[in-house]
Amino acid sequence: MTQQTSAASEQTGSASKTKRGGLEGVVAARTGLSKVDGEAGRLIYRGYTIHDLARTTTFEEIAYLLWFGHLPTKMELVDLKVRLLEERALPKVVLQVLSDLPATTEPMDALRTAVSAWGAATIKGKPTIDQAIALASHFPVFLAAFHRLRTGLEPLESHPELDYAANYLYLLNGQLPKEEHVQALNAYLVMLADHGMNASTFTARIVASTESDIASAVVAAIGALKGPLHGGAPSKVQDMLRAIGTQERAEGWMREALARGERLMGFGHRVYKTEDPRAEELREMARLADPQEFALARRVEELALALLEEQKPGRRLYTNVEFYSAVVLASVGLPGDLFTPTFAASRVVGWTAHILEQVANNRLIRPEADYTGPNETRFVAIDERV
Amino acid sequence: MTQQTSAASEQTGSASKTKRGGLEGVVAARTGLSKVDGEAGRLIYRGYTIHDLARTTTFEEIAYLLWFGHLPTKMELVDLKVRLLEERALPKVVLQVLSDLPATTEPMDALRTAVSAWGAATIKGKPTIDQAIALASHFPVFLAAFHRLRTGLEPLESHPELDYAANYLYLLNGQLPKEEHVQALNAYLVMLADHGMNASTFTARIVASTESDIASAVVAAIGALKGPLHGGAPSKVQDMLRAIGTQERAEGWMREALARGERLMGFGHRVYKTEDPRAEELREMARLADPQEFALARRVEELALALLEEQKPGRRLYTNVEFYSAVVLASVGLPGDLFTPTFAASRVVGWTAHILEQVANNRLIRPEADYTGPNETRFVAIDERV
Repeated sequence: MTQQTSAASEQTGSASKTKRGGLEGVVAARTGLSKVDGEAGRLIYRGYTIHDLARTTTFEEIAYLLWFGHLPTKMELVDLKVRLLEERALPKVVLQVLSDLPATTEPMDALRTAVSAWGAATIKGKPTIDQAIALASHFPVFLAAFHRLRTGLEPLESHPELDYAANYLYLLNGQLPKEEHVQALNAYLVMLADHGMNASTFTARIVASTESDIASAVVAAIGALKGPLHGGAPSKVQDMLRAIGTQERAEGWMREALARGERLMGFGHRVYKTEDPRAEELREMARLADPQEFALARRVEELALALLEEQKPGRRLYTNVEFYSAVVLASVGLPGDLFTPTFAASRVVGWTAHILEQVANNRLIRPEADYTGPNETRFVAIDERV
Repeated sequence: MTQQTSAASEQTGSASKTKRGGLEGVVAARTGLSKVDGEAGRLIYRGYTIHDLARTTTFEEIAYLLWFGHLPTKMELVDLKVRLLEERALPKVVLQVLSDLPATTEPMDALRTAVSAWGAATIKGKPTIDQAIALASHFPVFLAAFHRLRTGLEPLESHPELDYAANYLYLLNGQLPKEEHVQALNAYLVMLADHGMNASTFTARIVASTESDIASAVVAAIGALKGPLHGGAPSKVQDMLRAIGTQERAEGWMREALARGERLMGFGHRVYKTEDPRAEELREMARLADPQEFALARRVEELALALLEEQKPGRRLYTNVEFYSAVVLASVGLPGDLFTPTFAASRVVGWTAHILEQVANNRLIRPEADYTGPNETRFVAIDERV
């Protein structure tokens, strides 16, 4: 979601924004799921501020909130967990398809293909909440299976005692995860589950608006999330931190990068004109998960904000969700190319909730285009063309 | 793209339209590729009216026009055909993935999965014209391979002497196709190749706008095209014609269907308020391809238009592209569930041309949402929830 190079232009009027083709300021849908207040730096899920949820709820509770409209009671949560557990097996068709892909396949491409194959073999009819639950529950299973296959290992069976976050780490590594890793990953999943009319959610709603199926809509959303201007860039934050290496080198490295016209990764956002509220929470998670890595990241962040204010004054470039996402996901042991797929394993709940909301009161989303080509060209048959 | 039930509301003002959530009247992008004039019933590809192109050009010429901006000379066309021929083999990974899918898989789901797997194994970097050519050239190959596999037959090698339309029919059936079938299918492919900011093209552009890859964008578009409100309904026209059976039964059958509140398939369109110019051309193709089937379809069309004007006066419901698409595609021997995938095998040229246009002057497409949920709900931890 990094928008640093174009962040300055966000402050121009809405008429010129629309002409620029990004649909800025255009209301594309009504939703009761989440509210992004970019000026105040607030994110709300169905009435609850993200700050109340980040360290007090499990990802399963948030899935329940987004899908069903209220936070679950203990019994309602047990019921959802049972339904999620029932959809954790790796179907044979998906195992075969993942085994067919080259080991060098990008995990986002493997996930897109696995979900497509699963939908092809499984999904019939209009989107349902049962399909949404099944889809979300399978995401960590597909990702971990591909990760093990590409490293020459057999995929594992899900651990019946572990919840969504912990089971994902278990499926990747075959070991019971550390409690602080589970907490950090859970908080990450809670905070990334929904975010208004972002590009992948909008994509999912358009596909659903044609009365296509839920798998088609989610597969489309995965493709959109993959793009570096949306969810595809957090591993670049990690690359930057690795390249910087030490706190002492940070300022020099970043000054040189900016002098070369490069972007500092993890700063600026299309919507937020202040600190992303998720960055605030993820900062605390990063602090707890790995104090040493945190110290470097924090120093880089402070210097980056000062340098950006110095060199690009007025652009309002603040720390975005990607910066500490990268630190948190690295600290729980994920390789960089699983950062964006793990984002997908959270956002799938938001996507499916939006799909169900779209189809409950559907209207085909079909905008218009401004045609800029010629209008009347005389046709000449191929034998006479020169 | 059938919009019969909601066609009346298309005539209301644009403010209320936008509130309805379909982005009606909202310009989402600028394009030099095609212009849809819904009031005049005109469709233009880069300056050429569809009526000049429908019976005078090959699908390859239209692909050239949309990708490169002008109709090709003979030499330019030869060059494009060579490049298409080079991308006609069935890659092993796609054969494996298609073989993994159940024989009952919907062909659109098989196509979506095949393109995703192909992209996973093949596509690197930003969208290019070479990737667009490779993608389009593989569509008929993937579809025919799946169709043969699901019927217990081995996929065939492409025929080096045959062009896009003819080779597709050959790959499906293993026989050299009749010239009138090739002509009819070619004209269909020419006319369906692009159509302004339709839902699947818009989907492809949004995915491309995140800087994701061309396969992700096309996979997303396939999912959108699958929906019956977009490209997924032409086989329902064929179902209706089969159910009617004879010209004598047509009026009674349709009066009963309308009395039950059912929709007559193949009439009405979000954009066209007069006859769809493609329907006009496809009518002539249908007349040539199978005169007997045409006679029934023509009688059904005439009666349907009269009945709709009688029962839904003022709605301006005209024959849409799906009506004669179904007749033409059935007449060349395609089963109903290949109608929409064959649409995709044409539209892939438009999708990829739009993707290349989007990335050439990119801006992330990220609209806003109108949040309708509660704003400040007091958080209660799970142990205290009742």
